[in-house]
Amino acid sequence: MSNYVRRVIRENLKKYIGGEQKIPKDAIKLNQNENEYPTSPHVISTLINYLRSNDLKRYPEQDSETLKDKLAKYYNLNSEQITIGNGSDEVISNIFKTILDKGELIISTNPTYGMFKIYAIEADANYYEVDLNDNYTIPVDKLINMKGKLTAVTNPNSPTGVFTEISELERLAKGLQGYGVLLIDETYADFTKDNALRLINKYDNVIIVRTFSKSFSLAGIRLGFGIGNKDLIEWVEAVRNPYNIGTLHQIAAIAALEDYTYVKKNIERIIEEREILKKELKELGFYVYPSEGNFVFIKCKNIEEAKSIVNFLKNKNIYVRYFGDNPKLADSIRITVGTHEINIKVLQALKEYMQSH
Amino acid sequence: MSNYVRRVIRENLKKYIGGEQKIPKDAIKLNQNENEYPTSPHVISTLINYLRSNDLKRYPEQDSETLKDKLAKYYNLNSEQITIGNGSDEVISNIFKTILDKGELIISTNPTYGMFKIYAIEADANYYEVDLNDNYTIPVDKLINMKGKLTAVTNPNSPTGVFTEISELERLAKGLQGYGVLLIDETYADFTKDNALRLINKYDNVIIVRTFSKSFSLAGIRLGFGIGNKDLIEWVEAVRNPYNIGTLHQIAAIAALEDYTYVKKNIERIIEEREILKKELKELGFYVYPSEGNFVFIKCKNIEEAKSIVNFLKNKNIYVRYFGDNPKLADSIRITVGTHEINIKVLQALKEYMQSH
Repeated sequence: MSNYVRRVIRENLKKYIGGEQKIPKDAIKLNQNENEYPTSPHVISTLINYLRSNDLKRYPEQDSETLKDKLAKYYNLNSEQITIGNGSDEVISNIFKTILDKGELIISTNPTYGMFKIYAIEADANYYEVDLNDNYTIPVDKLINMKGKLTAVTNPNSPTGVFTEISELERLAKGLQGYGVLLIDETYADFTKDNALRLINKYDNVIIVRTFSKSFSLAGIRLGFGIGNKDLIEWVEAVRNPYNIGTLHQIAAIAALEDYTYVKKNIERIIEEREILKKELKELGFYVYPSEGNFVFIKCKNIEEAKSIVNFLKNKNIYVRYFGDNPKLADSIRITVGTHEINIKVLQALKEYMQSH
Repeated sequence: MSNYVRRVIRENLKKYIGGEQKIPKDAIKLNQNENEYPTSPHVISTLINYLRSNDLKRYPEQDSETLKDKLAKYYNLNSEQITIGNGSDEVISNIFKTILDKGELIISTNPTYGMFKIYAIEADANYYEVDLNDNYTIPVDKLINMKGKLTAVTNPNSPTGVFTEISELERLAKGLQGYGVLLIDETYADFTKDNALRLINKYDNVIIVRTFSKSFSLAGIRLGFGIGNKDLIEWVEAVRNPYNIGTLHQIAAIAALEDYTYVKKNIERIIEEREILKKELKELGFYVYPSEGNFVFIKCKNIEEAKSIVNFLKNKNIYVRYFGDNPKLADSIRITVGTHEINIKVLQALKEYMQSH
């Protein structure tokens, strides 16, 4: 049977394990960094109006041109610098397919986003991880020295949330020029003070990946996009499946951009709440990573305490994310920033835990 | 710049050209084999109800389990035999990624679906096409002799619509066992008298690909699925992006299966209309391929006549599909079967053309 399957897949590929989804309906769900604020009502009404026209029998726009134009305008880019995918995952996968030949070097960091390794295996490329610096920032010099055909980083880092200054990423882009492409996954960029967009027109080897899943409260539509040099994006677009984005998803994303004031307000609330959470968690005695995503990442005394807290919270119907597979993260817990009410409940539960242990 | 891009991509990949989309709003659009009957009202109302709950902030089911269970029940399969993709394209792409290593043999037919070659290039595999038999059926013996790691066929054939008997495909599956996988793209199977589903539990090397785009009037949601042996599908599922299908798409497909009576009625109408069209087109003097899709495929006197008819129809605001790139197809035209009213208009226009030439 399995001799039909590529050996590199059979021997190396392990299915990605995301945050637990089969949880009670009334649970507090803080394990996937979803946005606890609802999707913009403008998005919902636009979708309902479209559905009433009953035109889903038609194929969507093959290349999501209207959405690309909208994004280009919003980010002050040319629409030829943009590629769209079903989630940032499809965008990242298309970039890997465009750049990486069998046996070529792909370099990432430890920790980082789990899908990088999976796409590297699918490309049968040589995947290496370089440890983050001691302060959890991206180890620019080490990455430059590795001279990867592709270098993939997350900024803010996933899952620690630690932000690396853009000047450092610029140094990385420059150092890799001529050798390879720098993929910067900016899933959480809307919650940070800065981002790498200004590098795009300056370096021909930078691609930034973004998503509607976090700041836009639209994880359900799985809409991601990549931004890069026109000549590079042209090839990623050639690799992209035609008609890959369903009509409803294109429409939802366009409407979300039209209502960015709503999105912006939620982002501001989340940042404010995140800072409160960080302060309170420090007071409870945790080491709190200097996280800049829509989540906090905290280090416990040891692995046992981390596991024990995750279970304690679960018994209180609060679900957070635990990365026990990675020894570097096994003493830590990631908690999505919720609404003010939710965050109070989480802090209350953690306080209870600390008092009883 | 482009030295960042894999050579196999740079030198071989040409972007897929689908049916023209930028056409007048009031045009008769018969160039993408869309279903001219609207999507089931049950699908639309289910989607609207879901949207009113405003829960798009949540990720969709990672593995589309509910939809898989529904499909399994409908097709009398086990849900572990099913994989879901954004369009049959993503499913086919995942199958190629699972099976084909660099340099391995992938065999298809000429003509066939254009994406097979593109995915073969992305895998850096050796792609060969074998001519269809003189009666446009699949050349089983030749394909067996090629011993491909992957053999990809479309049945009914795309774009001719010609159907190959399942007993022949069974011979092909048997002949390839131990060597490779047989992918049968059954995009148009709902419009034929038979299909290959019964081969799935008998052969460990068969995967069938289906879509909601044609019979279900749901091209806008880009929902495809693959059906095969559990052990093979397990690996295709490992390659599939997690959370690849948006919530609205999962819900729409589930609702469409719930209203299959509606779908079935439209399929019957389309088959009836197709046969009328075929008869009338023969009377107009065209060679009409024995098409079993939701379209007719007709051969003109020569390439010039084919081009001239396509333009004549375009001037009448009727858009059909022309495959001028392929010398085997350049004298032929593909016309989607529309509603009765639309088909009368198409026949009327063709009659006019024939009388004036």
